[in-house]
Amino acid sequence: MRLGAAAAGIRYRDRDDLVLMELAPGTECAGAFTRNAFCAAPVQVARAHLEHHRPRLLVINSGNANAGTGARGLADAEATCAAGAEQIGCRHEEVLPFSTGVIGEHLPMDRVLHGVAEAGKNLSADGWSRAAEAILTTDTRPKLASLTLEAGGRPVIITAMAKGAGMICPNMATLLAFIATDARISKADLAHCLETSLAHSLNAITVDGDTSTNDACVVAATGAAGGPPLGEDRAALEVFRQGLGKVCEFLAVNLIRDAEGATKLVAVEVEHGRDAEECRRVAYTVAHSPLVKTALYASDANWGRILAAVGRSGLEDMDVGAVSITLGRVCIVRNGEVDPSYRDELGQEAMAAAEITVRISLGRGEASARVWTSDLSHEYVKINAEYRS
Amino acid sequence: MRLGAAAAGIRYRDRDDLVLMELAPGTECAGAFTRNAFCAAPVQVARAHLEHHRPRLLVINSGNANAGTGARGLADAEATCAAGAEQIGCRHEEVLPFSTGVIGEHLPMDRVLHGVAEAGKNLSADGWSRAAEAILTTDTRPKLASLTLEAGGRPVIITAMAKGAGMICPNMATLLAFIATDARISKADLAHCLETSLAHSLNAITVDGDTSTNDACVVAATGAAGGPPLGEDRAALEVFRQGLGKVCEFLAVNLIRDAEGATKLVAVEVEHGRDAEECRRVAYTVAHSPLVKTALYASDANWGRILAAVGRSGLEDMDVGAVSITLGRVCIVRNGEVDPSYRDELGQEAMAAAEITVRISLGRGEASARVWTSDLSHEYVKINAEYRS
Repeated sequence: MRLGAAAAGIRYRDRDDLVLMELAPGTECAGAFTRNAFCAAPVQVARAHLEHHRPRLLVINSGNANAGTGARGLADAEATCAAGAEQIGCRHEEVLPFSTGVIGEHLPMDRVLHGVAEAGKNLSADGWSRAAEAILTTDTRPKLASLTLEAGGRPVIITAMAKGAGMICPNMATLLAFIATDARISKADLAHCLETSLAHSLNAITVDGDTSTNDACVVAATGAAGGPPLGEDRAALEVFRQGLGKVCEFLAVNLIRDAEGATKLVAVEVEHGRDAEECRRVAYTVAHSPLVKTALYASDANWGRILAAVGRSGLEDMDVGAVSITLGRVCIVRNGEVDPSYRDELGQEAMAAAEITVRISLGRGEASARVWTSDLSHEYVKINAEYRS
Repeated sequence: MRLGAAAAGIRYRDRDDLVLMELAPGTECAGAFTRNAFCAAPVQVARAHLEHHRPRLLVINSGNANAGTGARGLADAEATCAAGAEQIGCRHEEVLPFSTGVIGEHLPMDRVLHGVAEAGKNLSADGWSRAAEAILTTDTRPKLASLTLEAGGRPVIITAMAKGAGMICPNMATLLAFIATDARISKADLAHCLETSLAHSLNAITVDGDTSTNDACVVAATGAAGGPPLGEDRAALEVFRQGLGKVCEFLAVNLIRDAEGATKLVAVEVEHGRDAEECRRVAYTVAHSPLVKTALYASDANWGRILAAVGRSGLEDMDVGAVSITLGRVCIVRNGEVDPSYRDELGQEAMAAAEITVRISLGRGEASARVWTSDLSHEYVKINAEYRS
């Protein structure tokens, strides 16, 4: 696997914004894409290429999402694939395109094509760090993860990079995550491992509730670790799956740490629900509430806002008398009303932490769910009011 | 109908924060209350009293919501009713309590009871303006409306006040609206008129998606206009219903104009949907999007954010190629992609207006829906990060 980067000048000046990721012949790939109905041109092209071909190259650009761009957008994505294919000598259907940035503008194809050629000149196995920087948009730092585990008696490496600080809400991997491993594993097993890993990581985070048009996550397995395919040894496959899950969770949490304007990392854990679906619903209602998020920003234990969000989450027959809410280690609400031992100083202390767990017990079952979110700060408004200008 | 106000000092200093609204004997009332599962103590008491009794008095306090306060909260709400009943000589079940403000703190009952007595001393038919000021929390100005219409050959007056600038999202009338009329109308007809009026007014607005624990809207009809009950003349009833709808819409729009931190009034109109429900879903998805709201704040025609919100609203079989988006009078997206005639200057000009209509055509039916919302500004974060402190 080799990576190359270049400063194509698509939108940003004086920084890399185009990445090539070359996959060795025989590499198996699985992907997950946005469920936004307006999915971007590169997502449509990547999904189609991945379905019928074994990818040899990923081409990623930042600064322009090539979304809402119609037929010309699709042609641009295909032309990008063709240019990439030329660099490494493969067919254009073996190239997957990815774009992230402003929606609704056409790609400046002359710069993109020049960038592809430039990036092709510096393909290298050591290219991860530079590539992880090049794919960023409003992120303030790169997100890289690497894990070595033993599966089926052999060391297996999983390395990944991701970007995304806004327009972040599950319903697929979050804009954009690329994972590579030397594991030998079938495409079907790889896809299954990815799906289950995402459910509790990149599909369990939200910054703003806005699912992007360009979300995409791809995992590529080169097989260089050797040995029989992991699927022939269920225990080895499970070790790999859990390792992939850990890498995805690491990326997810670090995306939220660097969310637009974020000053807090907040885990909302909902437990004792009837099923995971209703737990997720409550967790997201709390995680999306602007009032909860501004209270978190202010380190103000204004827990009534959490309670109100739980109450409006639309669960049937909710027994508010069974609901408890804990902030960090401080029990605030017990059985639907303020805990007798609660004092505002304790709540303020819990809220002052940079990493906070809000635990909500619904008291009506055994299911649970967790999502991560960020707070809503002045900086968030500033970033999003000024992003395009 | 007489109103009185007093400065009880419940939370705020040097301003009125308690209102009595006395209803003449024989007045018919209908109400609508929050659907938040955690509904506040006064909402529970008011709903129960309204179901079985003909109200004679409303007691309203601002600064403290008496929500999340358990059994003691219910007892406090009942004690408030008893104190009100004493002022005008009625039974405590004939009093409806309403509270708005911070959630999770007990009412300072000594001050509340003192305030009830003080407000009882200045009951007057001219008390609307002072009362409309007293019920405010984070609002910056009172919302009052009055309309005179002719129904069944007689003049009928509808007068109303409302408050609410945050924790605003339908699912009942928005925290708090009080409407009075001299129409002679049955309770059942009044309830029906209220329900249909709210659907397109106070139940079609959102500031932050956070449905309050205390939302309540009450309409009281004294019958002083005389004549036969409006229900005996369907045409007259319809005139009244439309007048009530206009008053509610006026209140709704003015609540959003004064929403926390709002610099823009935004109508999101979704048309050509299969049914009103899916139109509302799309409209709310756009109206709740922090990315759309910050773009509105910045007067930035970053329409890709609107398109992304439409795309993630979860409609089945959405044909993105049939979707069009218009901002003010500027067509931005036609058939799923940027309109050939669109230029960014046109979009910027449309976004610069203080009142903006975003019109989204789904191109798959005849149904439509409209919701009003505000933008997301620095001031919004400031207000909500500092509200309690």
